[in-house]
Amino acid sequence: MERKVLLAIADGLGDRPCEVLGNKTPLEYAKTETLDMLAKNGTTGIMDLYKAGVPVGTDLGHLILFGYGIEDYPGRGPIEAFGKGMELIEGDVAFRCNFATVDDEMHIVDRRAGRIREGTKELAGALNGIVIDGITVLFKEATEHRAVMVLRGENLSSAISDTDPKKEGLRIKTSTAKDDSKEAAFTADLLNKVIVKAHEILKNHPLNIKRIEEGKFSANCIVTRGAGKMPKIKKITEKLKFKACCVAAEDTVLGVANLAGFETIHKSSFTGNIDTNIEEKAKAAVEALKTNDLVVLHYKATDLMGHDNNPQGKVETIEKYDNMLKIVLDLIKEEKLDDVIIALAADHSTPCERKEHSGDPVPVLINGKSIRKDYVEKYDEISCSQGGLNRIKGSDLISILLDYLELTVKQGN
Amino acid sequence: MERKVLLAIADGLGDRPCEVLGNKTPLEYAKTETLDMLAKNGTTGIMDLYKAGVPVGTDLGHLILFGYGIEDYPGRGPIEAFGKGMELIEGDVAFRCNFATVDDEMHIVDRRAGRIREGTKELAGALNGIVIDGITVLFKEATEHRAVMVLRGENLSSAISDTDPKKEGLRIKTSTAKDDSKEAAFTADLLNKVIVKAHEILKNHPLNIKRIEEGKFSANCIVTRGAGKMPKIKKITEKLKFKACCVAAEDTVLGVANLAGFETIHKSSFTGNIDTNIEEKAKAAVEALKTNDLVVLHYKATDLMGHDNNPQGKVETIEKYDNMLKIVLDLIKEEKLDDVIIALAADHSTPCERKEHSGDPVPVLINGKSIRKDYVEKYDEISCSQGGLNRIKGSDLISILLDYLELTVKQGN
Repeated sequence: MERKVLLAIADGLGDRPCEVLGNKTPLEYAKTETLDMLAKNGTTGIMDLYKAGVPVGTDLGHLILFGYGIEDYPGRGPIEAFGKGMELIEGDVAFRCNFATVDDEMHIVDRRAGRIREGTKELAGALNGIVIDGITVLFKEATEHRAVMVLRGENLSSAISDTDPKKEGLRIKTSTAKDDSKEAAFTADLLNKVIVKAHEILKNHPLNIKRIEEGKFSANCIVTRGAGKMPKIKKITEKLKFKACCVAAEDTVLGVANLAGFETIHKSSFTGNIDTNIEEKAKAAVEALKTNDLVVLHYKATDLMGHDNNPQGKVETIEKYDNMLKIVLDLIKEEKLDDVIIALAADHSTPCERKEHSGDPVPVLINGKSIRKDYVEKYDEISCSQGGLNRIKGSDLISILLDYLELTVKQGN
Repeated sequence: MERKVLLAIADGLGDRPCEVLGNKTPLEYAKTETLDMLAKNGTTGIMDLYKAGVPVGTDLGHLILFGYGIEDYPGRGPIEAFGKGMELIEGDVAFRCNFATVDDEMHIVDRRAGRIREGTKELAGALNGIVIDGITVLFKEATEHRAVMVLRGENLSSAISDTDPKKEGLRIKTSTAKDDSKEAAFTADLLNKVIVKAHEILKNHPLNIKRIEEGKFSANCIVTRGAGKMPKIKKITEKLKFKACCVAAEDTVLGVANLAGFETIHKSSFTGNIDTNIEEKAKAAVEALKTNDLVVLHYKATDLMGHDNNPQGKVETIEKYDNMLKIVLDLIKEEKLDDVIIALAADHSTPCERKEHSGDPVPVLINGKSIRKDYVEKYDEISCSQGGLNRIKGSDLISILLDYLELTVKQGN
């Protein structure tokens, strides 16, 4: 039986002592039999995703966990585009968009076109494939009023300003170049033409005429933000020749996984919240282990509780995470996958007291029959700081795991 | 109550086992109730200021502790200039100078002008503001015979040799270019002209005529060393928008603090030696906490004992440092500052056996109610190596502390 790696990522897991938990962190406080059993039979450590004391976003945190450096970070637009299954190539410039409602003078009436939910696929389809000044516009709907747009062609730049005025009553902003390059001037000008062209197409679209008849806001315009240019990065699965899969609910994580060349599995029962179906997720992950070398199993709810300053809730979501891992282990046994390395990590800390990501290191753990065991018996921020992995960087973890799969490239001879 | 950070730095604190202390380090041997209490309720680690096994100077050590990289190190001249309260700008070239006594043929009669103590302010004033070849000379007296000189203008280089021959009887050296650039040739030539011009002005200065009448050495010349060019660096307090203050006795530390944009507090009772007034220092630091986000409290005597190979003396200075921290904690309590993070660090090790700075890591500690506590119960080099911070770099510490103040910049989204 071939060796496999399952990497479980609890988003925003790391925390600080919480007064309501008797000055324990939620992870210290929670009852986590499975996580602790994995610690007892594995090795542990703490990890700075990028640098000690520097918070990272979920996108960059996962980009690093999936084998990239901060220099590969393409900005939010491209990651959202990947999250929607679009395949970006080097030089593409991607944006996050809203469908919005404007009046005849392009003043924003509603930034979300009445939180439009239906018909955005058709509207996006009407914009997809427009060509202006030799540049192709790719357009895809996302959740509710959201969408992603990609400009594809020569000499594009992401150094251009947003067109979203962020407020009703204001006119859509004219995009301008943020640097002196010809490319930025060209792209800003192009984006402004795209906005006008999109308005022409959308205002006359049958779905919008119908929306007006029904007394709804017409999704007659788009506004953009977060321009990001796709850098020259190779899919890690192609570079190192392995198969990987990511089981997740969240578009951002799925986007980074797509960018890295991972297959992605997302079902409607994966909610990205505490009500997510952990049986389904565990099952999907173990099923994926059969055909992949590396499977990432992402769990979002822990992060939300940190953002909400809800230590009790974070304890609860951690105990559910522990349950999910128990199901995973049971299924692995059932499926007789007898050489699976289990790794536990997080993309950043989200301390309840801070309600935001922080630079505190996250606890990591690696368990498997070939792993050097240390003396740590619990999976939490404090215990793991005593572990055999010591303090590592985010980029180290994937490298260590891929080395167990004999995929890392030997240096020297 | 807003969160504050107090960073106490014991200069040259780290050491090696000393035979006379039963093979304990001075910090292990010393009775340090307060430091140990802070360890018991905080987290600890060891720290390489720059790289493992690489000693750093007090200037670079503090530059790193205050948030800069080795690439920002401007050389000794600029740091001394900042230490004297001069505000350097990008492109300035600064030097450490001595007032000296020369004969008519520019041979050194006394390198320190008889260790002149009085009138240097007037003499420096006479040189300050000279303009030669479009370059302005700024001049300021320092302790005793010492002074700092800054050349300000276009196209200056610091790649030039010293003019100080370092020995009586020798002629003042002619500065020469250390590389092939036009700038270095220009600056060396200019410096030679400055030396001649300064001699003309000084030898006829009334204060020197009076000195000769009194049978004293005439401070009729200057010699220079340590040319350093001010790099383009932004004050960290401006870059990250916070208020910081440094309480210290030593010009070098005050210089780095000024460079970093910290307010500085220096009273005559702060001596930089074991007789320094710890009550006054503690009081100044806690007072500064009220109006600053970060306060650095520097303690010099530990380093001196290392340089003197005086383990017993180092123990004594460490116990005094422990007392200073006790006073600090009492005052913080008294002032009801209820969310102060206390961090302990050092700028380098100065092992007694070496009598010089070494590359041994230094013990660090962070204490505060939001800090993940570890299992370490003593603040010393050995105990801290078991701590929850593990082994960090000098640049990590300030980053971690600024993250508790929510000042570090999140990467990604």
